[in-house]
Amino acid sequence: MPSHAAALRALLGDRVVTDPSVAAGFAADAYPQAAALTGEEFTVVRARSREDVVTTLRYAATHRVPVVPQGARTATTGAACALPGSIVLSTAAMTSVEIDPVERVAVVGPGVINTHLKAAAAAHGLAYPPDPASSSMCSIGGNVATNAGGLCCVKYGVTADYVRGLEVVLPGGEVMRTGRRTAKGVAGYDLTGLFVGSEGTLGVVTEAVLRLVPLGDPALTALAVFPTLTATMAGVAAMRAQRHTPSLVELLDGPSLEAIQDYGDYGFPRGAGGVLLVQSDRPGHAAQDVQEYATALTAAGATEVAVADDQAEADLLLEGRRVLNPALKVRGPRFIEDVCVPVGRLGELVTQVHAIGRRHGLEATCGGHAGDGNLHPCFFYDDADEASTAAARAAFDDLVRAAWTLGGTVTGEHGVGQQKVPWLAEELGEAEVARQRAVKALFDPLGIMNPGRGIA
Amino acid sequence: MPSHAAALRALLGDRVVTDPSVAAGFAADAYPQAAALTGEEFTVVRARSREDVVTTLRYAATHRVPVVPQGARTATTGAACALPGSIVLSTAAMTSVEIDPVERVAVVGPGVINTHLKAAAAAHGLAYPPDPASSSMCSIGGNVATNAGGLCCVKYGVTADYVRGLEVVLPGGEVMRTGRRTAKGVAGYDLTGLFVGSEGTLGVVTEAVLRLVPLGDPALTALAVFPTLTATMAGVAAMRAQRHTPSLVELLDGPSLEAIQDYGDYGFPRGAGGVLLVQSDRPGHAAQDVQEYATALTAAGATEVAVADDQAEADLLLEGRRVLNPALKVRGPRFIEDVCVPVGRLGELVTQVHAIGRRHGLEATCGGHAGDGNLHPCFFYDDADEASTAAARAAFDDLVRAAWTLGGTVTGEHGVGQQKVPWLAEELGEAEVARQRAVKALFDPLGIMNPGRGIA
Repeated sequence: MPSHAAALRALLGDRVVTDPSVAAGFAADAYPQAAALTGEEFTVVRARSREDVVTTLRYAATHRVPVVPQGARTATTGAACALPGSIVLSTAAMTSVEIDPVERVAVVGPGVINTHLKAAAAAHGLAYPPDPASSSMCSIGGNVATNAGGLCCVKYGVTADYVRGLEVVLPGGEVMRTGRRTAKGVAGYDLTGLFVGSEGTLGVVTEAVLRLVPLGDPALTALAVFPTLTATMAGVAAMRAQRHTPSLVELLDGPSLEAIQDYGDYGFPRGAGGVLLVQSDRPGHAAQDVQEYATALTAAGATEVAVADDQAEADLLLEGRRVLNPALKVRGPRFIEDVCVPVGRLGELVTQVHAIGRRHGLEATCGGHAGDGNLHPCFFYDDADEASTAAARAAFDDLVRAAWTLGGTVTGEHGVGQQKVPWLAEELGEAEVARQRAVKALFDPLGIMNPGRGIA
Repeated sequence: MPSHAAALRALLGDRVVTDPSVAAGFAADAYPQAAALTGEEFTVVRARSREDVVTTLRYAATHRVPVVPQGARTATTGAACALPGSIVLSTAAMTSVEIDPVERVAVVGPGVINTHLKAAAAAHGLAYPPDPASSSMCSIGGNVATNAGGLCCVKYGVTADYVRGLEVVLPGGEVMRTGRRTAKGVAGYDLTGLFVGSEGTLGVVTEAVLRLVPLGDPALTALAVFPTLTATMAGVAAMRAQRHTPSLVELLDGPSLEAIQDYGDYGFPRGAGGVLLVQSDRPGHAAQDVQEYATALTAAGATEVAVADDQAEADLLLEGRRVLNPALKVRGPRFIEDVCVPVGRLGELVTQVHAIGRRHGLEATCGGHAGDGNLHPCFFYDDADEASTAAARAAFDDLVRAAWTLGGTVTGEHGVGQQKVPWLAEELGEAEVARQRAVKALFDPLGIMNPGRGIA
């Protein structure tokens, strides 16, 4: 039994996992380069309430044990991987949902799955827009911890745009509240934004007050195939200029399309320069919008455009995008990028992805959220071959530098985790790193909250 | 000449005001209870660049001089009033505006007037939605400092929802950047939200990167007259339930209507229970929406509903709301409240305003942003009469406590300034006050940034 399990069990009973084979299931998130820990190397607490979190953080402070807050383990950056000797504090079981249709807010526990919240809101004619690609699996606590984005951000923004207030348990067990439940409120500094995206390095979110919006219409889809990357980027620019902002503008480059077709026949042509998937959910106008998008995409150089008349067909057109992640996963080990650049520089970024892949002799794919400049290029490598692994690492580094040159950032929405720590200090600069460390020390003076993640 | 003027003049030349009669113009913002300082009691620097701000803050830190950052002086809370012996650092002359229509951002200096930014964005078919009632006079720096709201918040949110990043000069002269220019970005803690609403207590904003959205249609207006407060509140609830959220839902209670009619004939009936003004700017549907709003307002109990067919008429219907502030100003000394409660509790709040006014023998008016629960009740008093002044102070206190009981806050959008400091500590609680002071000390260890304002 891990070192802290017995002591925690005395305090928390069956919230503490004592079976190492069960604990092993909490070892890693979806980070492809995650270290393989056994269930003996850390202690798992499955909190069911704020009080469980308080008890755990009080114990951790007293005994100076590192704590790894964990949601649904869908992070691709290692932010939620167990650390040797740590307490993994899972909030997955804290799944309360309260919808207030008059104030248009949801008050939720951190373990609520993103799509469950969407469904609960939809029952009141309301929507919670943020939709990471993993929305059917990822939890709101994790969404808040990473300031998760997703596919709809081009129209609806990111998680931070919907978090009105938080309840957070700080290291040592103090409960604090940030923000508000009212529509407006400016009494004192608003620390909400500091905690959103802080990746479990400052405290553990035990409740979130989230803003809801009226439900749009079911989204309809236009799918456009372009012969070249240049034409694809002209399509992105055309979508960016729409007065009625699409609710989704997703890019699949040529190699991504090949990977998807290798995985199954989703109807994509081989040898295309790129595909754009575009949606509208504008009440009463989705059909009209996607027709207009189709016209603009054709004018931009698309050689083939399909428009879905109903939601079933619209979902079908999106199917190919949905299988991108599994299709890439089966291809083998990869480094997943999450760079974000100004939308106007997107073409240069994709060109760089391909050039860097060629330079390092690696297969490279490039797809993602074209509408907001946030792509997820992948470099594939052979993890049994050190030279190939080193080449992939170098390619990752080259691409981050290319993104910086284009005015971008190392992470648009996945967060820093442990994967991007080496680049964070360089992106922020020395003075900012010092400032951010001072902010962290204010909340976590012992440095036990998710150490080594999220901060330089 | 004020004590620091000569030394600063050597560093900053004609940026430093040496004529006390000119300086006197910088003594106070729009706080009705502002102290009357002469132009001899403080030093005014009119910064034209980031470097001017750096030089001023470096001087202030070296000589431990309090600094009052100042925008367009439209604050109603005293946040921008000169302090004896202080340097008043005006950023009103920093008025650069750059619109990037591809990325849909504006990069602006803090002195830019809100409506000037709106006009610059509109030239590209874009909008900067936040619209304080003072939008034709107030500056973006002040909007950021207070997280200003306004009339459109019911649909478009507040200033914080549009600030993507900031350039801030910290005490001592260090220049820092927060946030990003890209649509997404989560590298490191985002300190942007900490500075938005910090009322000049942490540093001086020298540039803001603001998100723009596609321009709506010109807004059309429905105006509804209700016989009772209860019916008026039923109207608010009906507007809150609209799928196509109105872009404006403003309330004028009976006493506000009387005050407006006393100021000039704006066509309001005497003796009404309340008036609601509602707008839609939804592209292609504004006329349809306001007709639907009118039907819903009638169903809620409105005895008279006027609907504007065109923008000129729509503006005319809003005219009465626009003169509310001047109409109240001429009535004499008043305490201006800025409480915000859940929208569902708004009726109870207005009832309390009237009850508290009666209890203290004071004239009370209640109007404001009904759509988001943020009202600006006023208690009028005789400032030559100590008992009357004390009664007004007690009424203010009573109303804040009533708002708290209803789940609200002492300030929805005006900020704390110096007016609401006495209530802030009670609203936040002891632990939060200590935390906020520690945050302030991290950025302003000497405590010279706008001391006595914005923080408990």
